[in-house]
Amino acid sequence: MAEDITDVAVFGAGSWGTTFAKVLADAAAAHGVQRSIRVWGRNPETIADINRRRNGRYLGDIELPEGISATTDPSVALKGAQLVVFAVPAQSLRAQLEQWRPLIPSDAVVMSLMKGLEVGTDLRMTQVIAEVAGIAPGRIAVLSGPNLAMEIARREPTASVVACADEELARRIARVCTAPYFRPYTSNDVVGAEIGGIVKNVIALCVGICEGKGMGDNTKASVMTRGLAETTRLAVALGADPHTLAGLAGLGDLVATCASRLSRNHTAGTLLGQGFSVDELGNHMTQVAEGIKSAPAVRELARRVGVEMPITEAVVGVLAGRVDVDQLESLLLARELKSEGE
Amino acid sequence: MAEDITDVAVFGAGSWGTTFAKVLADAAAAHGVQRSIRVWGRNPETIADINRRRNGRYLGDIELPEGISATTDPSVALKGAQLVVFAVPAQSLRAQLEQWRPLIPSDAVVMSLMKGLEVGTDLRMTQVIAEVAGIAPGRIAVLSGPNLAMEIARREPTASVVACADEELARRIARVCTAPYFRPYTSNDVVGAEIGGIVKNVIALCVGICEGKGMGDNTKASVMTRGLAETTRLAVALGADPHTLAGLAGLGDLVATCASRLSRNHTAGTLLGQGFSVDELGNHMTQVAEGIKSAPAVRELARRVGVEMPITEAVVGVLAGRVDVDQLESLLLARELKSEGE
Repeated sequence: MAEDITDVAVFGAGSWGTTFAKVLADAAAAHGVQRSIRVWGRNPETIADINRRRNGRYLGDIELPEGISATTDPSVALKGAQLVVFAVPAQSLRAQLEQWRPLIPSDAVVMSLMKGLEVGTDLRMTQVIAEVAGIAPGRIAVLSGPNLAMEIARREPTASVVACADEELARRIARVCTAPYFRPYTSNDVVGAEIGGIVKNVIALCVGICEGKGMGDNTKASVMTRGLAETTRLAVALGADPHTLAGLAGLGDLVATCASRLSRNHTAGTLLGQGFSVDELGNHMTQVAEGIKSAPAVRELARRVGVEMPITEAVVGVLAGRVDVDQLESLLLARELKSEGE
Repeated sequence: MAEDITDVAVFGAGSWGTTFAKVLADAAAAHGVQRSIRVWGRNPETIADINRRRNGRYLGDIELPEGISATTDPSVALKGAQLVVFAVPAQSLRAQLEQWRPLIPSDAVVMSLMKGLEVGTDLRMTQVIAEVAGIAPGRIAVLSGPNLAMEIARREPTASVVACADEELARRIARVCTAPYFRPYTSNDVVGAEIGGIVKNVIALCVGICEGKGMGDNTKASVMTRGLAETTRLAVALGADPHTLAGLAGLGDLVATCASRLSRNHTAGTLLGQGFSVDELGNHMTQVAEGIKSAPAVRELARRVGVEMPITEAVVGVLAGRVDVDQLESLLLARELKSEGE
């Protein structure tokens, strides 16, 4: 049943989209299957580079396997696609998807690699896909986990989670993307997997700020612990299973992001902690830190469902210029002596 | 009520015992309280050094505050003590406590800073204290959390958990050790707090091995996620609240230890991953890595209560020379495709 997915479109030629195309190609080779993977991107130079089996801008000198082609034409990418993967910047998805919608084969299944909440609507990416493309939730999956793209591109052992309301479809997609170095587990908890990935970026900004301010591992560990607790509260209020947040798509993703120098959100936070303004970050980073865009939307969503998220509130305050990074320290130690769970 | 603890004995003049004595002295100064803190240690040079307000061997050139004295005589340390704190190597506690027992004031409360399981009995440190000293569980507390001693000694913001079956006593002790940079929360889950700290050392060995083998943050994050999951399974089987493991004494402690170069267990694992044998570790480290001693006891306890702990099993195998560190990689990716929770 896995072998019937021989045509895949991947939207997004950044580090994660290109790397996941490589996973799909390496998986096909490992299973002895022929598979056509067509990457769509907006930048003609990157597309030409991928067609020469490189993506120098995002993946350095890593060689891409056979089976991957790239195009700037969405109709070429989508023709005959059985699986459509989205890895574009979260805030641009809606506008782009409106153009692509008529071209998506009616029987295709789709998967989101994106970790953001749409500003203005507070919708998760799978919700945007369902709404704009009119695709039933049972045909929409999400991939999330401790998945730093560059490490996967280097074939370092990585586990992940494919979540779909239809867990049989999750299993089918998991088989399609199981490579010797890439191990997807399955789940039916789409909300938990998405919220874990979205809020992680916000918590990573806070951990980055602590690092930029020279704070130690005790402090950063406390921020991560309390950050995962507030992420779990939000996810559960939205109907998620708390175990998802304790797993690879919650704790795992958070730990990998906060440990890594490869993470954009972590890096952006570190620059903020060192005293750079939000506007200055663009001078130091080639890719956008999604947490900066999503943080206010996460706060809105939390307020709407009545969940307290003090770390998210603080990060939003820093991003808006209302809170100085020097005040963040009090966040950890300010509360009255009380029981940890209160 | 907090102010009635004016006499404290701290057993153990290593990095954590000395640092916690400093926390108690700084807390007293912050509260405007007179407090006598007497550190017991075995090594006359370290004791003399502490009496000169330094512990050069473990804390470099950090100056100790007023109110701390040190002695090699347990009767001097214990005379009039209202709080007795234990921070000695876990495997030596029983033999030492048998000598100290007659000297402990009958109304004193005690607290363990130790993170180990007794080899042979599989008892937690608070259980050893209760058994050997005949002290009721309601008078025995444990302190645990993301508490790298050197960071606390440098006054970096740190949160922790004081757990005691009698939560009112936990609150009382928490007040006594609340310093401007040290923020203890309270809990009544002694089992959860202790198991979190004990198994963390074993998981940190595994993460260190991965690091020593040059594996990336995706892999290490997966080991930490699955490691905390097996820790939680064991703790819950022993009666703990799973929330404790998701908190500072579980997740927080694990994250801080695995992130830090200051952690002995992490360092020991890294050396093992680089190919050094267990016997060679002593040449590279001044303090013992408790996880090496406790790992087999954790495995025995898990088997006794019927909990599967694959990471702990693997670490025990490496320590015993039965498993090569090169085989550890398969631990992460070997299982059949399945749902994450299975």
